[in-house]
Amino acid sequence: MKTLASYLAGRWHRADRDLQTLVNPASEEPLALVSSTGADFAGALDWARKLGGPALRELTFAQRGEILKALSKRLREHRDELLLLSRMNNGTTASDGSFDIDGGGGALAVYGNLGLALGDRRHLVDGVGDQLAKTEAFWSQHVQVPRPGVAVHVNAFNFPAWGFAEKFACAFLAGVPVITKPATATALTAHRLVEIALESGLLPPGSLQMVVGSTGDLLDRLGVHDVFAFTGSAATALHLRSKKNLLAASVRVNVEADSLNAAVLAPDAAAGSPLFELFVKDVAREMTQKAGQKCTAVRRIVVPGAVEGAVTEALAARLAKCAPGDPVDEAVRMGPLATEDQLRDALDGIAELLATADLVFGSGVRADGLGAPAGKGYFVGPTLLRSEVPLEKSPVHHREVFGPVATVLPYDGSARQAAEIVALAEGTLVTSAYSNDADWVAAFLASGGAYTGRLYLGSEGSEGVGSGACFPQSLHGGPGRAGGGEELGGLRGLTPYLQRVAVQGSRPHVDAVTGARP
Amino acid sequence: MKTLASYLAGRWHRADRDLQTLVNPASEEPLALVSSTGADFAGALDWARKLGGPALRELTFAQRGEILKALSKRLREHRDELLLLSRMNNGTTASDGSFDIDGGGGALAVYGNLGLALGDRRHLVDGVGDQLAKTEAFWSQHVQVPRPGVAVHVNAFNFPAWGFAEKFACAFLAGVPVITKPATATALTAHRLVEIALESGLLPPGSLQMVVGSTGDLLDRLGVHDVFAFTGSAATALHLRSKKNLLAASVRVNVEADSLNAAVLAPDAAAGSPLFELFVKDVAREMTQKAGQKCTAVRRIVVPGAVEGAVTEALAARLAKCAPGDPVDEAVRMGPLATEDQLRDALDGIAELLATADLVFGSGVRADGLGAPAGKGYFVGPTLLRSEVPLEKSPVHHREVFGPVATVLPYDGSARQAAEIVALAEGTLVTSAYSNDADWVAAFLASGGAYTGRLYLGSEGSEGVGSGACFPQSLHGGPGRAGGGEELGGLRGLTPYLQRVAVQGSRPHVDAVTGARP
Repeated sequence: MKTLASYLAGRWHRADRDLQTLVNPASEEPLALVSSTGADFAGALDWARKLGGPALRELTFAQRGEILKALSKRLREHRDELLLLSRMNNGTTASDGSFDIDGGGGALAVYGNLGLALGDRRHLVDGVGDQLAKTEAFWSQHVQVPRPGVAVHVNAFNFPAWGFAEKFACAFLAGVPVITKPATATALTAHRLVEIALESGLLPPGSLQMVVGSTGDLLDRLGVHDVFAFTGSAATALHLRSKKNLLAASVRVNVEADSLNAAVLAPDAAAGSPLFELFVKDVAREMTQKAGQKCTAVRRIVVPGAVEGAVTEALAARLAKCAPGDPVDEAVRMGPLATEDQLRDALDGIAELLATADLVFGSGVRADGLGAPAGKGYFVGPTLLRSEVPLEKSPVHHREVFGPVATVLPYDGSARQAAEIVALAEGTLVTSAYSNDADWVAAFLASGGAYTGRLYLGSEGSEGVGSGACFPQSLHGGPGRAGGGEELGGLRGLTPYLQRVAVQGSRPHVDAVTGARP
Repeated sequence: MKTLASYLAGRWHRADRDLQTLVNPASEEPLALVSSTGADFAGALDWARKLGGPALRELTFAQRGEILKALSKRLREHRDELLLLSRMNNGTTASDGSFDIDGGGGALAVYGNLGLALGDRRHLVDGVGDQLAKTEAFWSQHVQVPRPGVAVHVNAFNFPAWGFAEKFACAFLAGVPVITKPATATALTAHRLVEIALESGLLPPGSLQMVVGSTGDLLDRLGVHDVFAFTGSAATALHLRSKKNLLAASVRVNVEADSLNAAVLAPDAAAGSPLFELFVKDVAREMTQKAGQKCTAVRRIVVPGAVEGAVTEALAARLAKCAPGDPVDEAVRMGPLATEDQLRDALDGIAELLATADLVFGSGVRADGLGAPAGKGYFVGPTLLRSEVPLEKSPVHHREVFGPVATVLPYDGSARQAAEIVALAEGTLVTSAYSNDADWVAAFLASGGAYTGRLYLGSEGSEGVGSGACFPQSLHGGPGRAGGGEELGGLRGLTPYLQRVAVQGSRPHVDAVTGARP
């Protein structure tokens, strides 16, 4: 069986100790071995800082953009191979795999185009200048310059391709070399993707390295100009961001963590109306896509008491079509959870939710998968709960069950009470609001907008693809429990990798130095 | 003797235990007593969150701006009184006191005008929208909304008025209530300033509270939507930002800490040239203004080896005119350090620097002050050192001596080596570069810009007021040792107090909800 190697300091490191086994989550068949034991992390950091960083900072934004676009093309050429690896190691259907892999390619391409638009520069001009005295003899202009460190990216198991690509694109375009670490249990896709990127010859040496397996002492070696970005659980995030070297050196840490995302139906959507149908269709998809293993999946369904019965009934009808199975069968619409640990955690989570909620659809226990050997595979069927006490602090608002599981929460139809319910989660990545009434939504934004990083609006005539999709143009991140980070959002995504500098002096001199007025 | 009271939850709390004595640093005469023992911090947070926050969020940016402008005016009316308190408790000359007090008033006024310019809105529209699909039926527009929490501001002893005002202006304009804490030892000026603000009747109840003395368990009670901003030492910052509740809830923490700021002379400035003279004049002022007790003071003087002798000679001639004394005498140009602890720390620091540097001007020990009783007062004369080993890691690059103390560091005249020297401090608030050669400065920005938050340029024709002054229009903050924070910079200064939200939906709906296209 193949052992996946790490790529560090210009060579492939293949460990022969402490090996972990990757498996197919639909069949539990072993796929590959992984370990990073013996890897030289000090050497990897040195290689990035001394070779990768200077090489990247020599390139203009446009040159880095060209490379990202070419990488996106290379990824498309290998799409079928990557989809297969995703199905084998992540248990994804073709549609779920595309969400990850084409999403990753899209992020590379969008940032490639942003780089081309920035053109022949090596720093960003940030806003317009300000006159500080009575004449232009004292002037201020902000710029943003690449940080002379390395970015370490620790990604989550659910999006091996997109998670790599969206973080890498931002750091690379900013001019900062990357050491990426896919989640060990589902490393197959990201490993191959990085292999493709390295084999392409497009990347300056030192600009991309990869750890498969443990990060060892890598994070303990980060210092003042480095950046650490993490996607995963709030508990792991707390452990990692508490490291003394990170705090002492003010290392920039960007976290995406747990999120109890809410979908809110406004009172103007009558049962059976097009808006109501859009809501039900979107929520059902956001619950079951990737078997609910999205940090942006809907976990809380906030609906006016008057239509609660109609929503539950319509949702149940849709969920009934999503029995889990081995996605090797193209008729299967929902795959397994990714690992045995995830299965155990999801079942524990459902049990926890049941303390203050009732089951209205699904079994709450492990299922056998369609086309999978009996007793094998990490399957959970779609599970819908309902809480009588939506306004109370309860597990429904803080226990993220990473599977096809959500809870219906009735409310009085006011924007204020909907915001109050959203707030109980103490920070989400995305909240959605379905209404044709812009005044209602504006009131909801005013009272509840601060609890989320993204507000997805469903309305008649909207053609969004659902609240779960992260577009490179829009912020991905949220306050509090969601980690307090900011990723993507166009050029905003470059912020952690750049140092903002206020350049002050006489205007002609400042303009000549910064290129602010060409 | 007067005991200074805290203002919390709508009433003045005057403690009668654990009292500390504030003194005049020129004479060591006692001025007032301070303690916060018995203060109800839970009640204060509740008052801010339930009363102050909602009241502020009801106001538009323009209304908040009006209040800030009116406050600035009120401060000007009390200018003489505040200057006197500053002289008594901070030992400032009239000019140094103005730097703090008029600087604070200026920050309030500038943010007042920014608020007026934003007009009748309650959230910021952030950038332009992006089309996410083939038509405008799927669109993304970012906004920034006030965070529904409280801002706790812990300020440094050196700028009681400006430190209060620059932080308060940003939070207040953003719509977030403030609990401010001046440094205990120099609380007199800030205490009176807040008293003036509260007595003005301009502020919505709950929007401003003040702790004098210890913060007790205040910081341990901060949660998900709160903001904590700190100015002070890197050691204290590390202790505070490591608090588990702050890390667990992703509380936004903004820090300004130690900074070994550098002033760099480029090789195009011949000894005796106008540029050379500008450099010497600026460096002498930046060393001695406020007796060197500015986080933006020049600590490292980076000069081409060829003109090192000339620089040292010219600097020494200027420093000789700055003997310290009691600023009650208007002829005195430099006051004492602010406290006995600061004096001890500065003298310890000079001794530490002397391990790898030589004294070229000054005594390195405590001085008696002009007009002060012999043996009384925390005086240190201007002190110039010189290092033979500017490119080595040494105390010169990491020990911030918070007094009129700086070290001359010769270099080879290349932008690259100047940047290398600047980098050894691992992050500064401000670096200055004196040159008429825009290409040289551009090269310096490219190789060294990322090591600082502000780059101050001196050139012929420039009329800057010196690198030490923080303008509300320009970023104040720096990477690494400087804390990694960002304050001011116009509307950028509101960032910690706002939550960015990507609003997605059909363009007409998004525009109607966000007001992006009126």
